[in-house]
Amino acid sequence: EESLELIERNADTILQEIGIEFRGDEEVLGLWRDAGADVQGTRVHIPRGLARTLCATAPSSFTQHARNPARSVEVGGKNMIFAPVYGPPFVSDVDGGRRYATIEDFQNFVKLTYMLPSLHHSGGTVCEPVDLPVNKRHFDMVYAHMKYSDKPFMGSVTAPERAQDTVDMAKILFGAEFVENNTVCTSLINANSPMVWDGTMLGALKTYARNNQACILSPFILAGAMSPVTIAGALAQQNAEALAVIAFTQMIRAGAPVIYGGFTSNVDMRSGAPAFGTPEYAKAAFVGGQLARKYGLPYRSTNANASNAVDAQAAWESMMSLWPVVLGHANLVMHAAGWMEGGLTASFEKFVTDLELLQGMAAFLQPLEINEASLGLDAIRDVGPGGHFFGTAHTLERYETAFYQPLLSDWRNYESWEEAGS
Amino acid sequence: EESLELIERNADTILQEIGIEFRGDEEVLGLWRDAGADVQGTRVHIPRGLARTLCATAPSSFTQHARNPARSVEVGGKNMIFAPVYGPPFVSDVDGGRRYATIEDFQNFVKLTYMLPSLHHSGGTVCEPVDLPVNKRHFDMVYAHMKYSDKPFMGSVTAPERAQDTVDMAKILFGAEFVENNTVCTSLINANSPMVWDGTMLGALKTYARNNQACILSPFILAGAMSPVTIAGALAQQNAEALAVIAFTQMIRAGAPVIYGGFTSNVDMRSGAPAFGTPEYAKAAFVGGQLARKYGLPYRSTNANASNAVDAQAAWESMMSLWPVVLGHANLVMHAAGWMEGGLTASFEKFVTDLELLQGMAAFLQPLEINEASLGLDAIRDVGPGGHFFGTAHTLERYETAFYQPLLSDWRNYESWEEAGS
Repeated sequence: EESLELIERNADTILQEIGIEFRGDEEVLGLWRDAGADVQGTRVHIPRGLARTLCATAPSSFTQHARNPARSVEVGGKNMIFAPVYGPPFVSDVDGGRRYATIEDFQNFVKLTYMLPSLHHSGGTVCEPVDLPVNKRHFDMVYAHMKYSDKPFMGSVTAPERAQDTVDMAKILFGAEFVENNTVCTSLINANSPMVWDGTMLGALKTYARNNQACILSPFILAGAMSPVTIAGALAQQNAEALAVIAFTQMIRAGAPVIYGGFTSNVDMRSGAPAFGTPEYAKAAFVGGQLARKYGLPYRSTNANASNAVDAQAAWESMMSLWPVVLGHANLVMHAAGWMEGGLTASFEKFVTDLELLQGMAAFLQPLEINEASLGLDAIRDVGPGGHFFGTAHTLERYETAFYQPLLSDWRNYESWEEAGS
Repeated sequence: EESLELIERNADTILQEIGIEFRGDEEVLGLWRDAGADVQGTRVHIPRGLARTLCATAPSSFTQHARNPARSVEVGGKNMIFAPVYGPPFVSDVDGGRRYATIEDFQNFVKLTYMLPSLHHSGGTVCEPVDLPVNKRHFDMVYAHMKYSDKPFMGSVTAPERAQDTVDMAKILFGAEFVENNTVCTSLINANSPMVWDGTMLGALKTYARNNQACILSPFILAGAMSPVTIAGALAQQNAEALAVIAFTQMIRAGAPVIYGGFTSNVDMRSGAPAFGTPEYAKAAFVGGQLARKYGLPYRSTNANASNAVDAQAAWESMMSLWPVVLGHANLVMHAAGWMEGGLTASFEKFVTDLELLQGMAAFLQPLEINEASLGLDAIRDVGPGGHFFGTAHTLERYETAFYQPLLSDWRNYESWEEAGS
């Protein structure tokens, strides 16, 4: 608690003395002035405590509605949502190699995500479909989530009008009145760390917040490059960046749903290359959750790795991310499946590999059943010392449910994506 | 606590009603009779509560002395000791492929273990040197640990007289008087689960306990094959097997140092093949620690995987073992590096890969430094929004120590093994 307060006090010092840049949007600066900040050019100096006070109106949890109500998700509290990879310009698989992503790849990731019960969210830019013109791409992406999945999805953030297009498409899908009264998309607003929020992101943020749609507010910090080299310093900066922009969402609309984003890792100091799944990342993920809960906000974290292939490194770094993210209780785990090359590539094979990891974590989180029936004393009596248990009644009754089921068996539980897309 | 008590109650029922087989050693049966057990042939029925009562004289922690006092280890309490792979008849590396292990391979693993600071213990049968005759093999193994390392080691358990040879060699190394008054080896006594302790293991156990040397008492249970298919049932059985034999060590010598061993995993129910690094293993590892601490005993657990290659599966399963083992606070982590093929093969490449994992866990366990200096506010002031931190004084001062150092750099801290072996 004392350490968290020290991080918070330093974040407040950053906000007040150094300030945060809000670039490319005059309205934002005006709103900050009205709220009591000292605005110098695009630099906003936020008096100690003000950002936290403004954050208080953000809900501690909210429902993101899915097209299929059974797939709606509660964001916050004890819930944990796994969402697929976000953002890579490349895709990779054994047959096609590494290549620029297309809308067909995008659709395939959406279909896979739809079919896999360990992914609770359809995600957003599961890969960047570079075969489509930038100014129309977002229509096809959002449409793919709507057509090929019935899970909740993320909207476009590359321009305010594209954010509005997302909201308008959602109104066609859900009905205008429903969208006006409910959250149906959650979208990713990233900082340009250190301490810069740019006009594109702020424009999209304003659109979503005004429409009561959710934003994930994510400083993305690689300690040593974009923050002090110490994880403590990186966390203080992360907290300043997150609180500043979450405060701003509440000026746009008090009560607008938000997620406190933490994505603080470090770089390889010999090359400057991003590193993920490091022990430093693990610590930052745990503390990020503690900070978010201090403010009563849902927490977003990440399953990341820095490997360029689906190899041992990819797997151990992913597990060095996933364990602290799960035990640190992230409410939304982005990039839960498919992230490779530090986010440059969405890999189909890594995607399937990650599903094994996610299912394993889900199985781990199931409470251990400890009662007279599960303890199976009769089976032990039947078998006795030196025997084996393969054929006992207790084993035959329970072997299908005792251990976690591997990936493919879960596909049976799902309708085919063709039905969903029709 | 309630669940632990239910496991314990079932363990007591197993001990009393079903009983434990102590085979091939009449002396053992006589001692159990004297202690109040109901002995029928080789089946020992232990009255409810008796095993636990007998275990009370076992120490909650002990020092295992190393040839180099700086490398002695405290077994128990908050200490965590990583030891290399134990037992495989095969070794594997890229150059030589998979092959029967030789004494040269054995020596190489000992030398590597000596050089790597993340391994705190030299281990025992790091691989089985099948090029040497069985009746003399143990001399060469124990001698290799003495010659090529100065870390603590494990002794032979394949016959009582080989255990005695180990103690006698230790007396040459440490001096007879020192060995009579201190613990200088820790050796691995495995159950033949379900509920059988055999004469070979019991003979070695008696030798070590009489000499005040430590034993790791390890039920090795694959749920579904060697115990009920449920982890709860497997844990009750594990507890019965462990308590029975730990109780027996205390009849041999009250106060003899022991380690409560837990190695409960499950099988693939479609093939019967052992599975490691499963969610079920993770749960069993956590609960095993809770049980050992309930009895105030040091706890042994394992970093295992079921993969046949140093691939993504090997790494994620190892991490699915290592995280719960570390967070579940195992005092001795066996097979921490090099285990492959479910224990059939000691892999040199897996050994080095595991070292990355172990170092990462060690770095993770270092408390996060959170104070005004580490928070680096001056660096943030210097850089300001939109800049980078590569050249700041704070970074230059700290970049060598801020993040964990990769494997090879640690070799600098060690004298070469030639010096040690001279």
